[in-house]
Order: sequence, then C-alpha cells, then structure tokens
Amino acid sequence: MIQTPYLLFLGDAPDQLAAKVAQGIRDWRPDNAVGQFRMEGCGADVKLPDMDLAAAKAAGAKTLVVGVANRGGVISTAWKKVLVQALEEGFDLASGLHNLLRDEPELVAVAKACGRALHDVRVPEVKYPIANGEKRTGKRCLAVGTDCSVGKMYTSLAIDAEMKARGMKSSFRATGQTGILITGNGVPLDAVVADFMAGSVEWLTPDNEADHWDHIEGQGSLFHVSYSGVTMALIHGGQPDALILAHEPTRAHMRGLPGYDLPSLETLRDTALPLARIANPACQVVGISVNTAAMGEDEALSYLAATEKRMGLPAVDPFRQGAARLVDALDAI
Amino acid sequence: MIQTPYLLFLGDAPDQLAAKVAQGIRDWRPDNAVGQFRMEGCGADVKLPDMDLAAAKAAGAKTLVVGVANRGGVISTAWKKVLVQALEEGFDLASGLHNLLRDEPELVAVAKACGRALHDVRVPEVKYPIANGEKRTGKRCLAVGTDCSVGKMYTSLAIDAEMKARGMKSSFRATGQTGILITGNGVPLDAVVADFMAGSVEWLTPDNEADHWDHIEGQGSLFHVSYSGVTMALIHGGQPDALILAHEPTRAHMRGLPGYDLPSLETLRDTALPLARIANPACQVVGISVNTAAMGEDEALSYLAATEKRMGLPAVDPFRQGAARLVDALDAI
Repeated sequence: MIQTPYLLFLGDAPDQLAAKVAQGIRDWRPDNAVGQFRMEGCGADVKLPDMDLAAAKAAGAKTLVVGVANRGGVISTAWKKVLVQALEEGFDLASGLHNLLRDEPELVAVAKACGRALHDVRVPEVKYPIANGEKRTGKRCLAVGTDCSVGKMYTSLAIDAEMKARGMKSSFRATGQTGILITGNGVPLDAVVADFMAGSVEWLTPDNEADHWDHIEGQGSLFHVSYSGVTMALIHGGQPDALILAHEPTRAHMRGLPGYDLPSLETLRDTALPLARIANPACQVVGISVNTAAMGEDEALSYLAATEKRMGLPAVDPFRQGAARLVDALDAI
Repeated sequence: MIQTPYLLFLGDAPDQLAAKVAQGIRDWRPDNAVGQFRMEGCGADVKLPDMDLAAAKAAGAKTLVVGVANRGGVISTAWKKVLVQALEEGFDLASGLHNLLRDEPELVAVAKACGRALHDVRVPEVKYPIANGEKRTGKRCLAVGTDCSVGKMYTSLAIDAEMKARGMKSSFRATGQTGILITGNGVPLDAVVADFMAGSVEWLTPDNEADHWDHIEGQGSLFHVSYSGVTMALIHGGQPDALILAHEPTRAHMRGLPGYDLPSLETLRDTALPLARIANPACQVVGISVNTAAMGEDEALSYLAATEKRMGLPAVDPFRQGAARLVDALDAI
C-alpha cells in the first residue's frame, strides 16, 4: 500500500507522452496528488501546481511518485539527486520503472537511514495464496480484449468513476504498474509466479458487500499467445459476474505478433464466456468497449452503432461517450 | 542441465510411495541411474543395485538425486550428512524438495568449496524470453486434462518411450519437478514468472527436424481455476500439432476444489482445440488417455470401448495397454 497523497515527479520528461503515469493519476485519482515536481527542461505538464519538496511536504504529500518513463533505462544522476533529497525530507518513493529503486545502492542506504519505503510496483510485495475457487460475495467486472492494449484499463477506470459519481459502491482493482500507481495498491500480475496468479487475483478482490462492484484491470488477451495465461488467471481468479468486451477496430494484427489476426468480437465472446462460467456460472457479457481513437467522429459513431446492432449489446467508446451505458448494463444484472 | 548418470538417494523413505521420483527415473530413464542409496530403515526399493557413494562414483555416477519426499519439509541431520559427503566426494546434488538445497548454508558452503552444483529443480535457472509466437519446425504433442493429476505426464512419457522403441525421433519435454529429475532438464513452469510462461515453453521446444516429436508435459487443466493460466501458457507456448485428452473417470470433483465438477471429454475437446488453433491452426485432437487405475479390468475395458465409440478417437489407458495406439494416431498426422 503506497501512502497518499503524492507529489508527482515529472523529471525532465521530453514530452507529455513520457509522463503518462502522472497523467493517469491526474485523470483518475486527482485527490491522490497535491502537485507536480518538474526539473529544468521538462516538456510535460499535468496541470497540477508546481511544487518543490518543501512545499509538497507542507501540503501533506507522503510519497514522491516517479510518474515518468526514463530514457535508456537508467536512473540519471540528476534524478537521483532529487530522489535522495525526497527520502531525506521524509517522502517514500514509488516507481514503476523497469530498473528498480531497490537496485540503486544509494537510494537503499538513504531510505534505510531515514526509515522510508521504496515501492517498486513491478515487484510483488505479498506472498499470494494458491487460488481456492471459493465463491466470494460482491460483484466483479472484468474487461477482456481481442488484443493487448485496446483500452481495458481505461474502460474499467471509466466505469468505476461513473459508478462512484452515481453513489454506487465501486473499486478499481489494479493489476499493472500504471494502475497500481494510480490507486496506490494492487497486484503486479505479470510479475507473479505462475502457480499464484489466480490466487493473487482472488486476494485482490475479496468478499465484499453484495452491491459492491470490483472492476478488475484486465491484462493481455486470450488470443495473444505471449500473455494468454495471465488473462486466463484473471478470468478464473476474478470469477467475474460481468465481462466487457474490449476492441480496437483498426489494428492490422495482434500487438507484436505480425502473423496473428485479431479475433472477431463474436469469437472473443464465445471463447471468454464459457471459460468465465467455469468459475462463475452466472457470468454474463454485458457490453462492448471500443477504442475509436484512430477513427474520425462519424466513422467512430457509425462503427459503434453497427457493432451494437450486430452484437445485441451496448457498444461505446468510454473516452468519447463516457461509460454511462456500460454502468446501466452492469446495474441491470 | 543435470549431469547424468545419477545415484538415487532414497534416504529413510517410509514406503514406496515416498520414493516416487526415484521410481519415475527407474521406470522411464533407467540408463540415467547406476544405483540406489538407502539409509537404515528405508522402506522403499526401486530395484537398482544398492551402492554407497564410493561404489556409485566408481560406476560413473555424477549427481546424487534426492528421489524421495522428506517428512515435515525439513532436510534432516541424517540426510544432510550424506548430502555433504556426496559433495565432498565429487557429486552434484539435485532435488525437487519444497525446501531448497540452496537454503541450507552448510550445503552451499561445501558445494562452493568443492566446486559442485546444487540443482533445485523447483527454481528456474534460465532467464526465459517473452513468447514470440513464431511457427517452429518439428511436431509437438501436448496432453490436456479434464483435471490436474489425471496422468498427463505418464501419458507423454509412455508415448515418448513407444516412439523411441519404434525408432522414431522423439523427446519428452519436462515442465514439472519430477519430469525434470527424470530427464535431467526442463522448465519448472509453475515457478516461472507470469509474463515468461509461454516463452519458457517456446524455449523448451525449439525448432527441430520435421519428423521429430516433442511430447510436452502438461500441467493443471483449463478447467482448474487455480492453475488454468499455466495450462493456457502450455497450449500457446507449445503450439501443439496434436492434443491428447486425459481423464480420470472416477473423480467426484476437481482436485482440491469441492464445488467444481469435472468437464466432459467433449467439453474439454471443444474448449482446448479452438484455443490451440490460435497458435497452430493445424492442431488436431488425436486420442484419449484414460487413467483407469481405480477401475477393475472389465470395467476399465468397457469404459475405454464406450469412450472410443462416443468420441470417435482411440481411447486407451497407457498403463494397462501401452501407448501404441496413441503413437499410431500421432504418426498418421
């Protein structure tokens, strides 16, 4: 569990895209961040107050979150100077970088001396159980994709936000680095040892009130041969009551796999639903989330209308249209 | 890669069942073992010459393999004395125990001093790649089960042995502790980090001659919610040309999951085959392996005949009948 609120470290991000973790926190959990820390030459701005460490501390910040990708996989001297100073001034550090904070001897030494925590969210911090498959109370929704990186996390965050806006009981359950930094906790599923994958998802989505919804962040795709095992563990460990089908219509082949075509939404539905019903016989497919970012407005709307008619399910792009109709569908089951 | 041949350490095994790893080596790779080492009170016997360390060394043994489960998960003082002596006399050690050789400081120190290797086959020793899904040459067969522990490893070993007896090109590819100790190498798949599962299976079953068969040891079951992600990674990383359906007809529920019924063989076929065809569109289901150990001979034979008729595929118990008909079916594709 990462202590909030955060100060978001944007460092010397060359552009806005490099700061997408910080932007995700800003978009989805604005209350989790009091300000942004930008170094000279920073090309990103997530529209939070610029603060130095002392100002952020005074504003209540507890953790400096590295909200930016670094260049070349090295934590630079300039960055390290800020990170060390943050530890000394009483901040914990949190990062989703490939190169780990814990692999930097200087950070480890200062953190120890100051009694501060280093959170590398790519590394599991919990000894997860083996899944037991027992039915849990409360409701769970999982987005499953025709491919990786088609907007599953965005969809779940948008649904969670809409439910919260309606006063419904709802949690977003992070299973990847960005999601964990956004919410402050979760399971870095792609780094969990095989035997414990499904158990870690059970651990992440425990018994809850009958009318509470967990929105489990999806990973990979049943149709992506590199990561399908991770997706399978989410379906069985999550025992979802509802599946959302996620799709990106303009993709020419599976991400990173040139020889592999994307499945149709029908094939995704007919593959994922029987597998989900092994763990939860009541599971239903309730809607479709389409990432239409690569389409113009007219093209997007007509694609969505045609998909909705063809599949007999609400089909929306939550980025263009919000997630209200997906929440309506979930609320109806 | 564990150096062969072995001396099999049976220790003070209370009974034959406790020595099932040693028995597996004896049954399937008799050339890999020169003898057995039994301590006082040992209740197991795998019918190999009893040898002390010196005799085994003289017979060419290179590795002392712990072929027995230990009691209470502790490596006892009596065992440790033998293990230390073996290192001193030039043996490597190999073990599939839950408690690791490498966690015993005395063994680590002696191994280092003597330049010997400690192989804990539960722990991956390789940095596996992410799966790339590229089509590999050669043929691959995978057994998939209605449940865990229904005889998948036995089936693959029996098919491999039959192919070798016929002079066909064939390899058994181990994915679990026992299989790795039997053959001397493999991937401990249940201990591999999620993102690398499918890649480890690709690594294990590389390009080969067009008429060479890999028999990939199965794990878990698509219908077992605790381990289905591991099974999925085998199906996609293994890109099998042929699936064998494995079943144990007398089981009342999924292993360790009282609320879960076993699927039918039809459901297993209709679930596994489309998933396998994502990675290998030419994949076929070629036969059925039934573990009839809990049935009398007449009951078993009539169950097999009825299953064969119902499914339109050869259905055999390789333990009772050998794997010849499964090999015939594989050889025909």
